[in-house]
Amino acid sequence: MTDPIFVIPLWADLTAVALGGVQGAMFAAGFRGQRRLDFLGVALIGIMIGMGGGLIRDLLLNTTPVTLQNNWYLVTATAAALLGMLLAAPLAKLSGVIVGLDALVIALFGAFGTSKALALGLPLVPAVFVGVVAAVGGGALRDVLMGLPVAIMHVGSLYAVAAAAGCVVLAGMHAFGVPTVVAAIVGIAVTSVIRLLAVIFDVSLPEQRMLHRRKVAVETSAIAVIKPDEA
Amino acid sequence: MTDPIFVIPLWADLTAVALGGVQGAMFAAGFRGQRRLDFLGVALIGIMIGMGGGLIRDLLLNTTPVTLQNNWYLVTATAAALLGMLLAAPLAKLSGVIVGLDALVIALFGAFGTSKALALGLPLVPAVFVGVVAAVGGGALRDVLMGLPVAIMHVGSLYAVAAAAGCVVLAGMHAFGVPTVVAAIVGIAVTSVIRLLAVIFDVSLPEQRMLHRRKVAVETSAIAVIKPDEA
Amino acid sequence: MTDPIFVIPLWADLTAVALGGVQGAMFAAGFRGQRRLDFLGVALIGIMIGMGGGLIRDLLLNTTPVTLQNNWYLVTATAAALLGMLLAAPLAKLSGVIVGLDALVIALFGAFGTSKALALGLPLVPAVFVGVVAAVGGGALRDVLMGLPVAIMHVGSLYAVAAAAGCVVLAGMHAFGVPTVVAAIVGIAVTSVIRLLAVIFDVSLPEQRMLHRRKVAVETSAIAVIKPDEA
Repeated sequence: MTDPIFVIPLWADLTAVALGGVQGAMFAAGFRGQRRLDFLGVALIGIMIGMGGGLIRDLLLNTTPVTLQNNWYLVTATAAALLGMLLAAPLAKLSGVIVGLDALVIALFGAFGTSKALALGLPLVPAVFVGVVAAVGGGALRDVLMGLPVAIMHVGSLYAVAAAAGCVVLAGMHAFGVPTVVAAIVGIAVTSVIRLLAVIFDVSLPEQRMLHRRKVAVETSAIAVIKPDEA
Repeated sequence: MTDPIFVIPLWADLTAVALGGVQGAMFAAGFRGQRRLDFLGVALIGIMIGMGGGLIRDLLLNTTPVTLQNNWYLVTATAAALLGMLLAAPLAKLSGVIVGLDALVIALFGAFGTSKALALGLPLVPAVFVGVVAAVGGGALRDVLMGLPVAIMHVGSLYAVAAAAGCVVLAGMHAFGVPTVVAAIVGIAVTSVIRLLAVIFDVSLPEQRMLHRRKVAVETSAIAVIKPDEA
Repeated sequence: MTDPIFVIPLWADLTAVALGGVQGAMFAAGFRGQRRLDFLGVALIGIMIGMGGGLIRDLLLNTTPVTLQNNWYLVTATAAALLGMLLAAPLAKLSGVIVGLDALVIALFGAFGTSKALALGLPLVPAVFVGVVAAVGGGALRDVLMGLPVAIMHVGSLYAVAAAAGCVVLAGMHAFGVPTVVAAIVGIAVTSVIRLLAVIFDVSLPEQRMLHRRKVAVETSAIAVIKPDEA
């Protein structure tokens, strides 16, 4: 069931890194008020989202991080983060761009994580786990370092579920002998579509909706408390 | 002094994973108000507590994570997390169950961490360190991802000290030639008993008591500030 | 371009661990009010700052953590943390000591990270990355576990930039055939001096200054809100 010949092509991996870098920087540049980051902070978030998924995957698989084997990953992530900062202002109104990029980045890191795990001989369930952690790990790291509530724990829109669905489909097709490239493409499509549909139709698990309403209330009160001193 | 034949038996490891999964999910399901988690969040916490200790141990030892080598670990952790969610409501009154499970889980991960480190030829001090980090790491990860103050840094009841005591006893007995299985059982007993006694008699290091009192005051004020907007 | 014979001498590595332990414990012991830590917490912070850089470096390089290969690292870090606690009270007025130690610790972990990465054959860009992450990683871990805003994301005084400058100089000199020991010494000097000058002249990137002003305002308001209940 293993497929030792399969290696994620460099161009595909760098594409994921670049999209992650752009998305991360656009996301980080969008912060206003206290959370506002300087250039370095925005670049760090871009690098983290671009490289985090691959690093976490390789740590879990106990392989030498491929993102550190050549200069291209870091150069790409940094350049993409700079591009993301430049694009943040003109595209601020188009929040759909960030959401769309985010869906694609999760899908790519999920598919690469599960594919590499399967190629290294991991069984189906842990291969899916590695994919999901690779997909959502970069974002969790970003939230922790920025002091934000971690999105996977409290988010609506079925974030981790979308990643898991794509990885399960990929691993399932792999088990039935479908070539990894085909399985990966289908898995990427499944995750992206579920994530986008979830955002568009505002789907969430029952508890989350309530949570969201409460959080807004708290944020409003926090702003009310802080404002007088800021003026 | 090394003991390369010793391997943690699968049933023992899966028992620790299952107990961790149940405990983590019961703990997470107990949150009310803003911190309330949906089903997915509760399951994630259960998986994290069940699998975190073993993952952190294997990362520190630079060995391929044993929890990802077969399907059973993830299946067990997930099933245990679901069970923990079901048990959370009927057992809500019996907070002793969560505390007891917690003591046993810390003890198991501590003992397995130190045993595996010694089996891989690590000296005594780092072997104890690996055990303590494996014991408390899952909980620290949970606290960070949930945005809670990290328990090991501020907790009463000598959390890390209990783990360390059991690991030191285990490593000491190992150094004197006691078979690993016997040393591990004694170490597990030492950690569990210390932790339970600490909770029962509310023992804490001097500073912690004061810290606790202050934290409650802050939480009360925070609730008072937020409530008006929530209504 | 690789230099497989180069190994960080044990005495140099232990010096970095000791300085990190002292600095971490002095830093942690300085907390007052709610953030006040007990003895165990202060020791944990010391160990984290002393050992964190080396652990993170070895995880990224997928090598067995050298800090766990003998008893000296943990013994040194723990003893240094205890020393740091004792020194915290008499040296509380001399905040320059903590800042100076901090600059040196960052410089040492950055230089050791980049040197080891180059010795293992990593290309220049990832070798610099490993150095920077090793330099700032221990502090980031401390901030996350203590629930503080992570300094590298929001800090003035060009924290990560100082680390990066030293690592770039080191890697550049290495590329031109300068012996690693010489390159490392120059790199350590560059990072230390930049960091100290940044603190002395209060240099920061444009956005950070504004951020700082706002944060102070928020902290003031938070204290104002909390105080009445604490009394």
